[in-house]
Amino acid sequence: MPSATCTYCSATAIYARDYEGVSFCSKCFEQALEEKIRRTIVRHGMLEFNDHVAVAVSGGKDSLTLLNVLVKLETRFPRSKITAISVDEGIEGYRDEALEIAREACEKLGVEQAVVSYRDMFGATIDELTEMHLGQTPCSYCGVFRRKAINRAAAMVGATKIATGHNLDDEVQTVLLNMLHGDPWRVQRSSPVLRDPRGKFLSRIKPLCEIPEKEIVLYAYLNGFDFQSVACPHGNEALRNDIRNFLNQMEQKHAGTKFTLQKTTERLRELLERTRTVSQLNECAKCGDPTSHELCEACLMLDAIAA
Amino acid sequence: MPSATCTYCSATAIYARDYEGVSFCSKCFEQALEEKIRRTIVRHGMLEFNDHVAVAVSGGKDSLTLLNVLVKLETRFPRSKITAISVDEGIEGYRDEALEIAREACEKLGVEQAVVSYRDMFGATIDELTEMHLGQTPCSYCGVFRRKAINRAAAMVGATKIATGHNLDDEVQTVLLNMLHGDPWRVQRSSPVLRDPRGKFLSRIKPLCEIPEKEIVLYAYLNGFDFQSVACPHGNEALRNDIRNFLNQMEQKHAGTKFTLQKTTERLRELLERTRTVSQLNECAKCGDPTSHELCEACLMLDAIAA
Repeated sequence: MPSATCTYCSATAIYARDYEGVSFCSKCFEQALEEKIRRTIVRHGMLEFNDHVAVAVSGGKDSLTLLNVLVKLETRFPRSKITAISVDEGIEGYRDEALEIAREACEKLGVEQAVVSYRDMFGATIDELTEMHLGQTPCSYCGVFRRKAINRAAAMVGATKIATGHNLDDEVQTVLLNMLHGDPWRVQRSSPVLRDPRGKFLSRIKPLCEIPEKEIVLYAYLNGFDFQSVACPHGNEALRNDIRNFLNQMEQKHAGTKFTLQKTTERLRELLERTRTVSQLNECAKCGDPTSHELCEACLMLDAIAA
Repeated sequence: MPSATCTYCSATAIYARDYEGVSFCSKCFEQALEEKIRRTIVRHGMLEFNDHVAVAVSGGKDSLTLLNVLVKLETRFPRSKITAISVDEGIEGYRDEALEIAREACEKLGVEQAVVSYRDMFGATIDELTEMHLGQTPCSYCGVFRRKAINRAAAMVGATKIATGHNLDDEVQTVLLNMLHGDPWRVQRSSPVLRDPRGKFLSRIKPLCEIPEKEIVLYAYLNGFDFQSVACPHGNEALRNDIRNFLNQMEQKHAGTKFTLQKTTERLRELLERTRTVSQLNECAKCGDPTSHELCEACLMLDAIAA
């Protein structure tokens, strides 16, 4: 049973953070969430005072929360800059709505927005690729192409870092997914900060990686964000959904389970780093983008589509 | 839908092994299960031709299956020997029944049985320890004491190896449990073979570690084993039960999930071995039993009880 009053200011509480045993009024909750994100950024050394951050903004709750909080934090750093990057995958009745939401959010915050589309960059939309029945799911293409599109757009606007809105739930679901897929090494890729030691590729950071999804929903709701909440029509992540339900049940019964699983992941990551099982990033022989092989996944897919 | 006939002999099928896409009649199923256990033993180098194996026999389906299969395999190795070890934890209305089942099974198979009790070895039964309200759950004591009792009994009968009935489900549940407890290093302890590199302590082997629980239930049923199927009255493994349900659901939807998770675990174990994060076994300063600390857990618990 949550306490009826805020642990910090005695106003009426609206949320009980079970994993810390504290309750929040809406104002203290917002402050605490922003402070938690700031601490994640500092602890992982995610940002420098003069970074130009390309924030991937899809128009969902995570990316809008990320953009708003980063804009707030940025006011303390006059030499920093934020540009929003939005990707138009070409999914009718879904992405067009989200892009409009993203556009309005950027306008309201006074943030420049760069929009890149799969059609311009790869010659076809996800809807079109789906109709070609190429043997892979639309999600396979989409994940790979989105990463590439964001990399390109970030380089295009002259950014020094890429920030994405992955939250705690995304991260721990992915870890369990990798375990059930027999791929423990993949934890390396889901690091809160992905740096290229040789400095050739932009670092990717995840400032929301320690925030549970339900706290992001609450923050977005309290701030009146108009975010897209419908699921992608192509989406079919059956296994991830099962994992999500399981972890939510576990969290309900044993508050803190998701954080513990994140801790487990960090420990595994340290092990991988010590054994140098970390895959070194190369430049794709075709497009120059980061890849652990000779050609990046996007170029391999584009070759297969062209064939 | 399982095939109506056995994949191997065309008799009526009674079981479909989804993860391999084959169906079995009862006779071919039994043969295949025994052969699978034999291959596990060979692959992991679990046994030598002249081993004296102490088999932990509780009277449950796993230990009775293990004992029966090992006795069958042993007929090929005239210089090997099997002794059953049964532990009487002192749990009224539960273990007494199981011990009687174990005794009858050993008699039927012509296997010598050594019974050791918590009362003789540690001065109190689990029922008595529970009534003392010592601040730890009965399961905490029981797990630690059982391991020690089996070690002692095995040494007493002059065994060269200890075999336990842990099945695939037990193993993968434990891995996930460790992940949710923040303890990835513990995978080391659940290895199919636990060897002391210095040869001071008996190796522990798990010949059933690649057999799904439901196949053991089926084998026990087909062989008419009278096994104990009620749960321990002290048992309270809420988190493990949730994990069991989740993994069973996953296996149902994606046949082979448990094996994939076992593969993941093997890979993690290799990583740990490469980084030498493996905890070295010492001799307990008090009783000489294996421990990764100065005193073994059992001695620490016994000291706390005596205090």
